[in-house]
Amino acid sequence: MNDKRIGKRTIALAHPPSVISFANIGGKFEGQGPLADYFDELSEDSFFGEKTWEKAESAMQKKVLQRALDQARLKPQDLDYIFAGDLLNQCIGSSFGLRDFNIPFYGLYGACSTMGESLSLAALAIDGGYADRAAAVTSSHFCTAERQYRMPVPYGSQRTPTAQWTATASGCTILAADGPGPYITHVTCGKIVDKGITDANNMGAAMAPAAYDTLSAFFRDTKTKPGDYDLVITGDLGELGHAIVRDFFSRDGIQLGENFQDCGLLLYDRQNQDMHAGASGCGCSASVLNGYLLTELRRGKWKRIVFAPTGALLSPTSSFQGESIPGICHAVCISAERKCTPQENN
Amino acid sequence: MNDKRIGKRTIALAHPPSVISFANIGGKFEGQGPLADYFDELSEDSFFGEKTWEKAESAMQKKVLQRALDQARLKPQDLDYIFAGDLLNQCIGSSFGLRDFNIPFYGLYGACSTMGESLSLAALAIDGGYADRAAAVTSSHFCTAERQYRMPVPYGSQRTPTAQWTATASGCTILAADGPGPYITHVTCGKIVDKGITDANNMGAAMAPAAYDTLSAFFRDTKTKPGDYDLVITGDLGELGHAIVRDFFSRDGIQLGENFQDCGLLLYDRQNQDMHAGASGCGCSASVLNGYLLTELRRGKWKRIVFAPTGALLSPTSSFQGESIPGICHAVCISAERKCTPQENN
Repeated sequence: MNDKRIGKRTIALAHPPSVISFANIGGKFEGQGPLADYFDELSEDSFFGEKTWEKAESAMQKKVLQRALDQARLKPQDLDYIFAGDLLNQCIGSSFGLRDFNIPFYGLYGACSTMGESLSLAALAIDGGYADRAAAVTSSHFCTAERQYRMPVPYGSQRTPTAQWTATASGCTILAADGPGPYITHVTCGKIVDKGITDANNMGAAMAPAAYDTLSAFFRDTKTKPGDYDLVITGDLGELGHAIVRDFFSRDGIQLGENFQDCGLLLYDRQNQDMHAGASGCGCSASVLNGYLLTELRRGKWKRIVFAPTGALLSPTSSFQGESIPGICHAVCISAERKCTPQENN
Repeated sequence: MNDKRIGKRTIALAHPPSVISFANIGGKFEGQGPLADYFDELSEDSFFGEKTWEKAESAMQKKVLQRALDQARLKPQDLDYIFAGDLLNQCIGSSFGLRDFNIPFYGLYGACSTMGESLSLAALAIDGGYADRAAAVTSSHFCTAERQYRMPVPYGSQRTPTAQWTATASGCTILAADGPGPYITHVTCGKIVDKGITDANNMGAAMAPAAYDTLSAFFRDTKTKPGDYDLVITGDLGELGHAIVRDFFSRDGIQLGENFQDCGLLLYDRQNQDMHAGASGCGCSASVLNGYLLTELRRGKWKRIVFAPTGALLSPTSSFQGESIPGICHAVCISAERKCTPQENN
């Protein structure tokens, strides 16, 4: 056993797994946004051919995994594991969407951090010698999330300015021990951070402290600074949460600069689509990663990015019982080149 | 990277992690059952001092992790990871119960297989060199589960004979790279198996095919047979599900014999406690493992057991929409001795 930890919380993978395939799928509004060209599939039908929105969300996960398999010319039995989860009660998006593939399955719950969590565990499973190939999958659907967390969509409830718009989208990454890249070089596991925010319409503020906590640990452990990366990107903090993280770092004397972005601020056209504080949902960071980010990493736009989606670990029940909103953030460093510990590159 | 897989689905851990501490907690009915003496804490108060049952469930997870830490004379910062989850929507039992410990956290959703899933991933994390120590935690609570999955408890609904009784219990295992044992020697990841059962009051039947699938894979991969183990124990199949698994194996010409047990059939006094088909819930297998099973493994009653809890991956919403019930089973082999791949021992 070799210790692969650096610092207190970060794993430097000894043999960084490669992204060998990725796919994403989105709905109508995602298709009207600036990243539309980076989607493999866009549907005008929010039911994706199914009779209920929950089944539609499962259909998205099924389609996105199949597409990622097809692109890599793989069959389901070529995957050793799927790591997947979603926002629905009992994670039924994943269990019903992925049940027909007959692939060993580790179910996760990380709320909107799930793409980071699933990618982390898939990378560790491969680096550790437990798998040749593993998939990381997640999804969200505006209509399932609204009726589960807030109000049934037909009520047409007024939304507050801090509210975000749950993306109707899904993403899948397939990792393998070897491949053309990009590579998962580092993984930093999140802690549950709860600073007492209780406004369920202001998730960005609730999750910002978790993003700050994990990103700080990542930079500290790797002895790097934000400027060492071409992009440091959170999942769905939205306008307010994103500004809070920037503010936290600036109090430490660290300027996050223009390379600090948020998938939730990129998915929609913020001038012409009325999405309030930005996109949210597991499918937001999953579809941005498995479209725009991985495509542009392969094209050479960036060499090294930090992908750090956050999740709010609340439920309607916990809010009804007066609880605050705990957040979590799972970070992975993704690099176009294989053997680049951040320190070696500087 | 060394390949640690044997067969198609089983990992033989190169350096089997040791159980260094374990703890469990139960409620009133668990205290009236035959395993009462194996509980670290039993409470007559189903609220565990809290104002709601959901907060009570979180309190159980908090207490059980603290107790396991205390018994090993560890502080929270001595743990590198917690792997945890529960049955509640958005897994709030874990996120609120464990948020104050400030330990890196991977949230899981495996329904009643969670003790098997969390133990599997904790063992892989340690064996892979990513952690020195990790905890696996889960819980269930009769009152939170009833009102979420079935009917609010005060309605006093009549239960069908195949129904099981959700245990009010929690369990925690702490694993470390080295220690006195017992040791996690093998891990077999479950697949989602759905044979079309739709009766949400007959979870045992829905989960039995998953138990058969994973246990078959485990025996095939390790080239062993049920008789090679002192105990092969499922999580909460209950009377009917347990009989179905026995029947499936006998069709393959394999007799599971008397060493095939189910935590759900052991937790309560089946003559004098009216629990219908047996106990269920994440807390059932978690509390039986972290009491009776690990205690007696240490005392020498058994040398080697297979612990294989099953989960039903449904939600009330999926049932309302006419879906069947997918099941999953995660198995781990736990041995009093360290370097015993089953083959070597025979």
